[in-house]
Amino acid sequence: MKKFMDNDFLLNNETAKTLYHDFAKQMPVIDYHCHINPQEIAANRRYTNITQVWLEADHYKWRLMRANGEDEKYVTGNKITNLSKASNEVPAPKINDTSLSNNTTHDYEKFLAFAKIMPKAIGNPVYHWAHLELKRYFDCDLALSEQNAKEIWDICNQKLNSADMSVRGIIEKSKVEVIVTTDDPVDSLEWHKAIKDDPSFTAKVLPGFRPDKAVNIEKADFGDYIKQLSAVCQMPINSIDDLFSALENRLDFFAQLGAVTADHGLDYIPYARNAENDTPVIFSKALAGTLLSDFEVQQYKTALLLFFGRQYAKRGFIMQLHYGALRNNNQQKMALTGPDSGYDAISSFECSHNIAAFLNELEKTNELPKTILYSLNPNDDAMLQTIAACFPGQGILGKVQQGSAWWFNDTKPGMEAQLTNLASRGLLGGFVGMLTDSRSFLSYTRHEYFRRILCNMVGLWAEKGECPNDIEVLGKLVSDVSYNNVKAYFGF
Amino acid sequence: MKKFMDNDFLLNNETAKTLYHDFAKQMPVIDYHCHINPQEIAANRRYTNITQVWLEADHYKWRLMRANGEDEKYVTGNKITNLSKASNEVPAPKINDTSLSNNTTHDYEKFLAFAKIMPKAIGNPVYHWAHLELKRYFDCDLALSEQNAKEIWDICNQKLNSADMSVRGIIEKSKVEVIVTTDDPVDSLEWHKAIKDDPSFTAKVLPGFRPDKAVNIEKADFGDYIKQLSAVCQMPINSIDDLFSALENRLDFFAQLGAVTADHGLDYIPYARNAENDTPVIFSKALAGTLLSDFEVQQYKTALLLFFGRQYAKRGFIMQLHYGALRNNNQQKMALTGPDSGYDAISSFECSHNIAAFLNELEKTNELPKTILYSLNPNDDAMLQTIAACFPGQGILGKVQQGSAWWFNDTKPGMEAQLTNLASRGLLGGFVGMLTDSRSFLSYTRHEYFRRILCNMVGLWAEKGECPNDIEVLGKLVSDVSYNNVKAYFGF
Amino acid sequence: MKKFMDNDFLLNNETAKTLYHDFAKQMPVIDYHCHINPQEIAANRRYTNITQVWLEADHYKWRLMRANGEDEKYVTGNKITNLSKASNEVPAPKINDTSLSNNTTHDYEKFLAFAKIMPKAIGNPVYHWAHLELKRYFDCDLALSEQNAKEIWDICNQKLNSADMSVRGIIEKSKVEVIVTTDDPVDSLEWHKAIKDDPSFTAKVLPGFRPDKAVNIEKADFGDYIKQLSAVCQMPINSIDDLFSALENRLDFFAQLGAVTADHGLDYIPYARNAENDTPVIFSKALAGTLLSDFEVQQYKTALLLFFGRQYAKRGFIMQLHYGALRNNNQQKMALTGPDSGYDAISSFECSHNIAAFLNELEKTNELPKTILYSLNPNDDAMLQTIAACFPGQGILGKVQQGSAWWFNDTKPGMEAQLTNLASRGLLGGFVGMLTDSRSFLSYTRHEYFRRILCNMVGLWAEKGECPNDIEVLGKLVSDVSYNNVKAYFGF
Repeated sequence: MKKFMDNDFLLNNETAKTLYHDFAKQMPVIDYHCHINPQEIAANRRYTNITQVWLEADHYKWRLMRANGEDEKYVTGNKITNLSKASNEVPAPKINDTSLSNNTTHDYEKFLAFAKIMPKAIGNPVYHWAHLELKRYFDCDLALSEQNAKEIWDICNQKLNSADMSVRGIIEKSKVEVIVTTDDPVDSLEWHKAIKDDPSFTAKVLPGFRPDKAVNIEKADFGDYIKQLSAVCQMPINSIDDLFSALENRLDFFAQLGAVTADHGLDYIPYARNAENDTPVIFSKALAGTLLSDFEVQQYKTALLLFFGRQYAKRGFIMQLHYGALRNNNQQKMALTGPDSGYDAISSFECSHNIAAFLNELEKTNELPKTILYSLNPNDDAMLQTIAACFPGQGILGKVQQGSAWWFNDTKPGMEAQLTNLASRGLLGGFVGMLTDSRSFLSYTRHEYFRRILCNMVGLWAEKGECPNDIEVLGKLVSDVSYNNVKAYFGF
Repeated sequence: MKKFMDNDFLLNNETAKTLYHDFAKQMPVIDYHCHINPQEIAANRRYTNITQVWLEADHYKWRLMRANGEDEKYVTGNKITNLSKASNEVPAPKINDTSLSNNTTHDYEKFLAFAKIMPKAIGNPVYHWAHLELKRYFDCDLALSEQNAKEIWDICNQKLNSADMSVRGIIEKSKVEVIVTTDDPVDSLEWHKAIKDDPSFTAKVLPGFRPDKAVNIEKADFGDYIKQLSAVCQMPINSIDDLFSALENRLDFFAQLGAVTADHGLDYIPYARNAENDTPVIFSKALAGTLLSDFEVQQYKTALLLFFGRQYAKRGFIMQLHYGALRNNNQQKMALTGPDSGYDAISSFECSHNIAAFLNELEKTNELPKTILYSLNPNDDAMLQTIAACFPGQGILGKVQQGSAWWFNDTKPGMEAQLTNLASRGLLGGFVGMLTDSRSFLSYTRHEYFRRILCNMVGLWAEKGECPNDIEVLGKLVSDVSYNNVKAYFGF
Repeated sequence: MKKFMDNDFLLNNETAKTLYHDFAKQMPVIDYHCHINPQEIAANRRYTNITQVWLEADHYKWRLMRANGEDEKYVTGNKITNLSKASNEVPAPKINDTSLSNNTTHDYEKFLAFAKIMPKAIGNPVYHWAHLELKRYFDCDLALSEQNAKEIWDICNQKLNSADMSVRGIIEKSKVEVIVTTDDPVDSLEWHKAIKDDPSFTAKVLPGFRPDKAVNIEKADFGDYIKQLSAVCQMPINSIDDLFSALENRLDFFAQLGAVTADHGLDYIPYARNAENDTPVIFSKALAGTLLSDFEVQQYKTALLLFFGRQYAKRGFIMQLHYGALRNNNQQKMALTGPDSGYDAISSFECSHNIAAFLNELEKTNELPKTILYSLNPNDDAMLQTIAACFPGQGILGKVQQGSAWWFNDTKPGMEAQLTNLASRGLLGGFVGMLTDSRSFLSYTRHEYFRRILCNMVGLWAEKGECPNDIEVLGKLVSDVSYNNVKAYFGF
């Protein structure tokens, strides 16, 4: 009988313990895709209470609370602002908006509502994440429940007062070297500049280029977005060539601030025929307000993705493609809380042929960038891994690869499945590993969670005689997947 | 080395044993979806031999026997009647039809044919179910094979003679509190009335509303069915409004007899545009014998399901949706044995967008009832769980949820996968748990099977330190999933 | 802590050890589907170095090397010939083509490049296969790495000099009784004849009929292929009836040389309406060089498969259907190395309805042959197993069945998943078991790998009390799946 979440949490064999404690745990953290608000780093935000940290913006927790039948006023509190970031995560509240925290009683009620569900949430990553965060950041070993909610509330809030629990303090104590945020092309990146110019903070905080709004031509606000982009670039956008120029302009700007990666959120990966030929006309129709057919939308998206792919290849950017979400499913509930507030799901729509054709089209002209593929549907794992392996690059370890288990798959069994698929159908030692995809500064424990799972798997193989028990070889493997590979792949 | 199916069968750790024996095992059984024939309860049917119980109506066993190359005369014996129930299970034979049992020699030959396959069926739930039933109902610890078939035949048949082995005796000794059957809207529910009016039997036997025949407009017998419904309701059905009135009439009737749940068997969940507008004309065309297009069929089905969903919401019924079967695949073999006799399979057709759109349409007007979603394709698990969580209800634990592992997934690995998916992507503590989906009165052991698997999983988490080893918390969790949740959810 | 790949490799319980060592290991090997070149058996090819055996034709290894960023000159060496076999494997090099081995330095560089990736490939079957081959054929217990590459190179090359390391020697020491190759209908089968006529070699080497080129009407070389077939059959082919006659002619010829099985490689299983009616015209259009619609292509393929199915039924051939590959994804890289050189992947295209309809159409007229279904997409496992079970045959154990885990699924977790699916949804004891699908003569160790995994699974059930620990029953089960079933099913 192991104690809950002890020092050897998830490490169920001796080799795993050595691999984790002596190797993986020692490596710094590179968080190459997340949704934190850089303003909070620039301002070095501090928190008054644990509800601000845990429940202000965490749709994972919100969904569990709603599954328990909780009143929405104890979930989001009907206070979500509409400030949106290109994201599958929630919009970041403005940090000056003290309305979110000016009611400590209400915040405690929310915390209590969350505490109540915990005994029912056993087996869920939220259960593990919450308790790992309590241990690592609050020195608290208690198992949260309705009964001890007040005690834990007090412990956390007191700790949040301490000097090292500012946003920057948390980042530093988490040994985070690099953070890549998720930013719209029109973003001023002012907070990235501010952070870069502040010598007192050494972690790199780099922008991530996420041009979803330029791709989503079917959305009602597309025209407005093009106007916004035009204004930011100080150039008219009347044609597809103008659009491409404007986007290149923004890519240059992002690159100046250190960006090396772009990210796309897609329902599925499109690949429509004649896309590049037809897109100039399609774009003009859209600007003129003409309704587009579904096929035209797919053509436009295909052409944009090809354009972006080529730009990324030229600039040495990594292309990250996230697809497979079925979004905004509950219109009535979303009217209260806005998009990205917990009403998304997994789609089953299949696009294997599109993925292969899209990558092939870029490869044909030597314009395929390093690419990381993420599907929200775990059924795609085997397909993605085998397609990725068709697009190797000389001198590049894992040029195209399947990303770590994403969102609804970012669970213990989900990560085990992703790693097993990767190891058995590809080269585990080339994996760039974990990212948080989070907007909470306490989520760096997810790297720990991943590393423990990785070490346990590799350790078990050694103990069962499925690989040699050569601790240097295995230690290098887990260190590479934890840190060295991502550092080399992104060139950090 | 554990003994085969001992007291701690499937319980591979000490915590699991405590959870099962001290908690889960103690809970009564609520079987909220099955295909038993209520007439057999009303008549308190008795059996002459084990073949009647095991092989009269069990397509699971038939499929295994056929996979072994057995002659059909030892499988169904070519004696399946055409009396059909809305069901994915076999039609119930008339209990007066002694032709099924008047040939003891033939029955023994069938039993022997079944016994022969057992050593090849290791790893199949039929192997576990059969032996659990031998232990629990026949005090028989033997492992069935060709060699001991005669011995076991005698043991079982002798036991079937005992007073407590009538249908009611079996239900009582299985601690079953509630049974929900599967009944067509035109059913007289006479046996449900008879059971209700009999004070000597205390288990609730409630009808379950299954209006598949009203939905399946493409079937050859649709027109006849509408006539039958018209006759039962004593009202003409000449328009869609008439149909809706008739169905409401029958819903009222079912509700009077205690019904609280409805069930739909669907190839896939439809969601066709303009369904509600176009359906009046489509229904009139169907009544006039006009051939409908595939799209019209999907429109009609969409409209009917929306109608039913609204009715269920109004009446507080639970809506159960079963989809993903590929039925009636072997026409030649089915000509001998009829539908639902073992020639169905899993479909891969994807309908994630339809499911989300259908639930959203009901939710928009606050007419989404409590809903349980079942797909026959295990690939849908992650998708279903994440869609379900988009439709919570204030004050309702797990308002929309994925149902327990169904039919071809009702296996040890299938249940483990379903529970793992549920726990890691949702709230395990809100799950309404197991049902038999069976038409055999010995199948209540499937609840035991499920509870052991549940306790083993939770116990393992505790022993590995993945959750606190708080036996009261964990005991409550398994008790809730075994019994308390379903009781509260259905209001039994 | 078990030693790496010791005598009990993959056998993690005592029952498993007994089952493997006393039963499964004792059985001979029947390799009922592979891509070896029969000429190499006829000529009793010998190897100069391990690179010839391991890297000449192994796209599994090539993919891993490319994932590591290796230069293609150390992978295929740009020396792949265009001699193609109907295959998902690589074309066999002409054995006289000494260009492949005339540069020992280059061969060593390739070997070294392969050795370098090994520590990163832990968890991949290539890691296990390579080391099993080192142990079984080279008496070498070392774990291959860059550091010991030269030592292992020398050990292997010396051993390859020994008398028993010719192709025939390897086959004999591997206890292989039957090998079924993969051959085009136009093949002269001259090497099969030569082997058959040579009394000094006792293993049966039988042709396998693989008429993909007659099915792939959309390919540019279809017309040429029909001319080739016409020439081989010495008859004109001007109509679909001529084509069918020619193919029957070749089926007779294959049967004369002992063929009992046919194999089809398909993107997906087609089933288009009116296929048999429309195909005469479609075939004529194709011969006339008219471009066909996608639907016509599917109609033609459907009709051809129905024709073949009926022919196989008439002749008692087993029909093997391999589908679900997404092939030739990287056109640029393939321009260097040709098809089947490591640029294929898994497709997600769904065809469950087609599969059921196709089998049903043959069954209707009692013309469904024994059939083995393989999908490259592991998501299809449950669907395939349940469809297969709808088509039983009296007196035939497992008439239609899902084949063993194929290609990208031929991994430890892939085989465990396939076996688990089979056991829990079907009759494990009826399974025909493993094949290599390989073109390397060292791959017979994959049968050992499979048997160990099978015995471990069954042994674990016994030790956990999930089945009786009756060693005779379990020993028979694993012996049947290892050898007896395939022997009976194919009639070898």
